[in-house]
Amino acid sequence: MTTGEDLLGSWNDTPTLHAITGFVASVVDGPLAIAPAERVATFDNDGTLWAEKPLPIQLDFTLRRLAEQAEADPTLRERQPWKACYEHDDAWLGAAMVKHYHGDDGDLHLLMEAVPTAFVGMTVEEYADTVDAFFRTASHPTLGRPYRSCGYAPMVELLRYLEANEFVPYIASGGDRDFMRPVAGELYGVPPERIIGSSLALDYQETDDGQRSVLYKSEMEFFDDGPTKPVRIWSRIGRRPVVAGGNSNGDVPMLRFARTAARPALRLLLLHDDAEREFDYTAGADEALARARQAGWTVISMRDDWATVFAD
Amino acid sequence: MTTGEDLLGSWNDTPTLHAITGFVASVVDGPLAIAPAERVATFDNDGTLWAEKPLPIQLDFTLRRLAEQAEADPTLRERQPWKACYEHDDAWLGAAMVKHYHGDDGDLHLLMEAVPTAFVGMTVEEYADTVDAFFRTASHPTLGRPYRSCGYAPMVELLRYLEANEFVPYIASGGDRDFMRPVAGELYGVPPERIIGSSLALDYQETDDGQRSVLYKSEMEFFDDGPTKPVRIWSRIGRRPVVAGGNSNGDVPMLRFARTAARPALRLLLLHDDAEREFDYTAGADEALARARQAGWTVISMRDDWATVFAD
Repeated sequence: MTTGEDLLGSWNDTPTLHAITGFVASVVDGPLAIAPAERVATFDNDGTLWAEKPLPIQLDFTLRRLAEQAEADPTLRERQPWKACYEHDDAWLGAAMVKHYHGDDGDLHLLMEAVPTAFVGMTVEEYADTVDAFFRTASHPTLGRPYRSCGYAPMVELLRYLEANEFVPYIASGGDRDFMRPVAGELYGVPPERIIGSSLALDYQETDDGQRSVLYKSEMEFFDDGPTKPVRIWSRIGRRPVVAGGNSNGDVPMLRFARTAARPALRLLLLHDDAEREFDYTAGADEALARARQAGWTVISMRDDWATVFAD
Repeated sequence: MTTGEDLLGSWNDTPTLHAITGFVASVVDGPLAIAPAERVATFDNDGTLWAEKPLPIQLDFTLRRLAEQAEADPTLRERQPWKACYEHDDAWLGAAMVKHYHGDDGDLHLLMEAVPTAFVGMTVEEYADTVDAFFRTASHPTLGRPYRSCGYAPMVELLRYLEANEFVPYIASGGDRDFMRPVAGELYGVPPERIIGSSLALDYQETDDGQRSVLYKSEMEFFDDGPTKPVRIWSRIGRRPVVAGGNSNGDVPMLRFARTAARPALRLLLLHDDAEREFDYTAGADEALARARQAGWTVISMRDDWATVFAD
């Protein structure tokens, strides 16, 4: 028995739970034991640690910002995506995503071009304050809870359980790194230096009044998804993860990167099959699920493996 | 008195030492106390934590690699910088640096173009092994000690002293991040995830035989010097440092970034004034020294403030 299994109270007693605790036991003091310094765990965020439907939380945040821009500048109200944001036209935004899944990226492209401009010239501290204010009030549209309570209780328990066994968990998300940093401490107990994610390009600026600031430029530095995840993980940590968790196709390279010929890895894939308590969808996860079957990754069924989804 | 002052045995009892321990006392439980999570310290490496003369250690490593390339490919022996490396023509290399200081970057440019090509296609693990092998045997050309013993004992003690007071030290160097990672644990007790530095661009690759690798491309991702240092520090840590140490003009933005209107910072500038035990030079540090005087940064005199320079 590994340390801290009592921390996993929101998990059902299923083969999935035994696969997790069995792996941890094997690398902590089993025949495959690895040094604590090597016990790196990386987790995707959207759809892995917190809910990502009907819209990623960060997108809701950004659309509100675009609406504010259109509020301040009437000329933006005639242009997409500001028009849709200003008019609360969810149909346009929903259609953009559907078109994307059918291979037409035109509207999504308009959106992706607008997003990096939404915070240009803002300092990193001002952005953190804006994110913080958003999380103090914003609520999930259908789950009936604040966004800051949309983290999955069993996953948060898993982070604590891994730490009890001297693993160090990181978040390696496609979402914006600096959007997660201000809240990941409260939600997940993960500090800013362990948040890896997409990033806007940054600039350093000194002004005559003594301000020394890092602030956002109007372009992306990188989009941390797919093959970029292993690259950013190496850049930030300088080690391969030995535990990696995700829920979609964009997590496949990270999960594959975790394993080497020399040592095993625990690859976790969260399956959203719980329409009653959260959502039921596999769109964007088809390749990941096929690989999980083929390579023996551990698939977590939200419906069957979790006694509780959200903490009270 | 702060915790762990007995760790600072290689320091003389001077005003510099008192400035350091006084600052630490003030932020640990003085009127300016800050939470342990905010106690981030960032240090330059070349010339701040280890010797950088007559040539940065990484440059010696890279020049040997270029010589190996010229060994394998005779056509390279007619081209600079491979020619100089192959012929051990230190004069050409020295002149390139002197020309650079006088505003002529032609030869340095040839060198800087060649460097990123030296390791193209190598995986990050292979590179780490190569660096490791270099440090097992390579010695400093004039100090009469292995490169792995060229770290400054007082600075290593300072890292331990800061940790004893719940600071977390990072290395924020202009040198190559992945060159420092394999040795920074042994030299400084700083793990790979806390090494910030310049980086070659990285690629992720999957091969049919099951290898999942991160490997180097032939260009730089960024050169972590000057205004780039605050940007990379924010990217990696998501906090401003409250202690920052450097020795040259390229460290000025990092040291300025450390202080805000809301809280003080300890800015350390190491002055190389010890020709007997190390080196005596201020080239490339003129702006930093002027700013130190103007802004009251703490200048460490190697000659006067250090009882010992290198550990036995």
